[in-house]
Amino acid sequence: MAVNFPSIEASQLHAVPGVELGWAEANIRKPNRKDVLVMRLAAGSTVSGVFTTNRFCAAPVTVCKEHLAAHAGIRALVVNTGNANAGTGEPGMLATRATCDALAKLLSVSSNQILPFSTGVILEPLPVDRLVAGLPQAIANLAPAHWFEAAQSIMTTDTLPKAASRQIVIDGQTIVLTGVSKGAGMIKPNMATMLGFVGTNARVAQPVLDALVKYVADRSFNAITIDGDTSTNDSFIVAATGQTELPEIASTDTPAFAAFRDALLSISQELAQLIVRDGEGATKFITVTVEGGRDVAECRQIAYAIGHSPLVKTAFFASDPNLGRILAAIGYAGVNDLDVSKIDLYLDDVLVARAGGRNADYREEDGQRVMKQSEITVRVVLGRGDAAATLWTCDLSHDYVSINADYRS
Amino acid sequence: MAVNFPSIEASQLHAVPGVELGWAEANIRKPNRKDVLVMRLAAGSTVSGVFTTNRFCAAPVTVCKEHLAAHAGIRALVVNTGNANAGTGEPGMLATRATCDALAKLLSVSSNQILPFSTGVILEPLPVDRLVAGLPQAIANLAPAHWFEAAQSIMTTDTLPKAASRQIVIDGQTIVLTGVSKGAGMIKPNMATMLGFVGTNARVAQPVLDALVKYVADRSFNAITIDGDTSTNDSFIVAATGQTELPEIASTDTPAFAAFRDALLSISQELAQLIVRDGEGATKFITVTVEGGRDVAECRQIAYAIGHSPLVKTAFFASDPNLGRILAAIGYAGVNDLDVSKIDLYLDDVLVARAGGRNADYREEDGQRVMKQSEITVRVVLGRGDAAATLWTCDLSHDYVSINADYRS
Repeated sequence: MAVNFPSIEASQLHAVPGVELGWAEANIRKPNRKDVLVMRLAAGSTVSGVFTTNRFCAAPVTVCKEHLAAHAGIRALVVNTGNANAGTGEPGMLATRATCDALAKLLSVSSNQILPFSTGVILEPLPVDRLVAGLPQAIANLAPAHWFEAAQSIMTTDTLPKAASRQIVIDGQTIVLTGVSKGAGMIKPNMATMLGFVGTNARVAQPVLDALVKYVADRSFNAITIDGDTSTNDSFIVAATGQTELPEIASTDTPAFAAFRDALLSISQELAQLIVRDGEGATKFITVTVEGGRDVAECRQIAYAIGHSPLVKTAFFASDPNLGRILAAIGYAGVNDLDVSKIDLYLDDVLVARAGGRNADYREEDGQRVMKQSEITVRVVLGRGDAAATLWTCDLSHDYVSINADYRS
Repeated sequence: MAVNFPSIEASQLHAVPGVELGWAEANIRKPNRKDVLVMRLAAGSTVSGVFTTNRFCAAPVTVCKEHLAAHAGIRALVVNTGNANAGTGEPGMLATRATCDALAKLLSVSSNQILPFSTGVILEPLPVDRLVAGLPQAIANLAPAHWFEAAQSIMTTDTLPKAASRQIVIDGQTIVLTGVSKGAGMIKPNMATMLGFVGTNARVAQPVLDALVKYVADRSFNAITIDGDTSTNDSFIVAATGQTELPEIASTDTPAFAAFRDALLSISQELAQLIVRDGEGATKFITVTVEGGRDVAECRQIAYAIGHSPLVKTAFFASDPNLGRILAAIGYAGVNDLDVSKIDLYLDDVLVARAGGRNADYREEDGQRVMKQSEITVRVVLGRGDAAATLWTCDLSHDYVSINADYRS
């Protein structure tokens, strides 16, 4: 059911010097599937991340923040699927710490050099013994070439593994960026999404990487929604190993910074959009652009109202140009001083509403033509400023209901 | 598919002295259905209403507010289904004014004594000629006994007509309250819902009625949600004809006021809950209560996050106690200083989570037992204050998608 999902071959994913990946079949929830990933980083790597703002954030999210704040030099990430370790209270914290301790011992590093991640069902105890028992297998098959298997190892309701890769040349040096992501439901990232990991061999100063991760997250993972449900486990991590002759990127006003930023944004947007293309039950990939706003916040607010409306999403599913539903969503988005008589609405190139009312030249068959496409852009022009925002989302189909009515059973 | 929807017989609906109702088959969108309602009020009636806060509010909503503000004495309501007359710009305003003018002429009153209402598809021109042509038929069959037919005349995707009636005795005088409502999708009223009309023979002073309508709307129509989509046309109107020997209710500190307020709240809650019971595709009726909050606003915010979560709603549809999804919704509701370690979660009488984590005594089969019921209460105890709020909602099923993918076609 995925929408124009690109064919991803293991051979397209460039190895990143300084990053090795290994998996285990640890039987966390179901047998015979890759459900644990270990990503080992070379000494000297710079790592930065952003995490969910959900107040019921998972135990591993809390521990990740602690370990990043310790600045001990992150040496490995460990991810399990099948269980989110969220809503699990103190036992959940102990399970996450035990996981970090076990992996640290196996890799001869300290526990606060490990970043832990979990994804799966909320409110169930993490089977930490099975997870720890799987770590030796994951370490045994660590290799730089295993990005595709890494993408497979973090899937839950994903139907396809999600990965992307870039190679750019800066000042004669080849910089590689390769990343993986997962997610198909409970997707309305609010800081980042569960889970996005990008590795690069660039050498990037910590404050520069911290700022870059936020910049990129806001324009990629924080600009997608499937169902409006912000996960308890969202995490987006960039690891820069510095395995290159290119000098450290230590300031934001150099051409090298700009080239790296653009490549990181590009790969992050691709990884985020792959999540939407594989959205639970998705049959359409929808881009919502809101322009002419007073500030980005109000543009995003209106874009999310459209992107979350079950009525708008089912109309896309049906290819039905019932476009008044989009006006209704704009109207209830909560921008209280909105003058609707200044608003234009486009569906791709078709001007549907002009100055707040139906465009006299709009013909139903033009709307119908666009609605039948698998990729559609909704463009709202507010006419009250210069700010803009873009959101990527999908439709709401029968399969979304089926998938989420069946997820645990 | 409606959930425990009561059997409503025309004979149960008490006539309200001073209110007559008549309908027409005006062919607004489809032939052979009642699609126009006229409700005539006796001279001297007091009328008050609340309306949608959607910025794309429909032309009739704008005109209703104008006519109520004119204080000319409302003498009739006119409602059409099949077309919302929203997103229709200036032509929509002209169509609504033409409707009021035509009805005013037929009833020998002035145009600003008419309140107009529309419900149906947004962004399509109102066929005002057909609407006006139907008015004589509606006037010809005006009668006090026609509340059931009135409920039928305002249905859109409703599967059942919605009406309720109360008779109370105050100071030896019989006071009647009878009302109708409609709505099954695009339901997250924000002031009131499209459409609720209550008539009563009580005599109520205008400022008292104005305050009462807001009080009641917040505890009935403003406490339901189906899909989170706030309609462009929501309207809730109470008309008090004063056709009684009971003295005017002119202050809020009398036993008569309290008795009338309680009866009005009771009938309004019933009418609002009928909308949820007939929610598009609904198979479960869910009560969400959030207690122990600092203020009502934060309790409502959390209740809506739960009530709108597609993941929570599909879990109810599946009778799957995947209750971590409720914790996730609480966590992303936007109450930023929430201490989750103080939160308890109950499903009916089952304590699922205690102090922010899974209750050690919770057994899956207890959750399963409650989830299988057709009526379920979710109770969240925040442990940070004395405020509380209640919301009524339904699940998200395949039929919701089918209904909204097919609505216009």
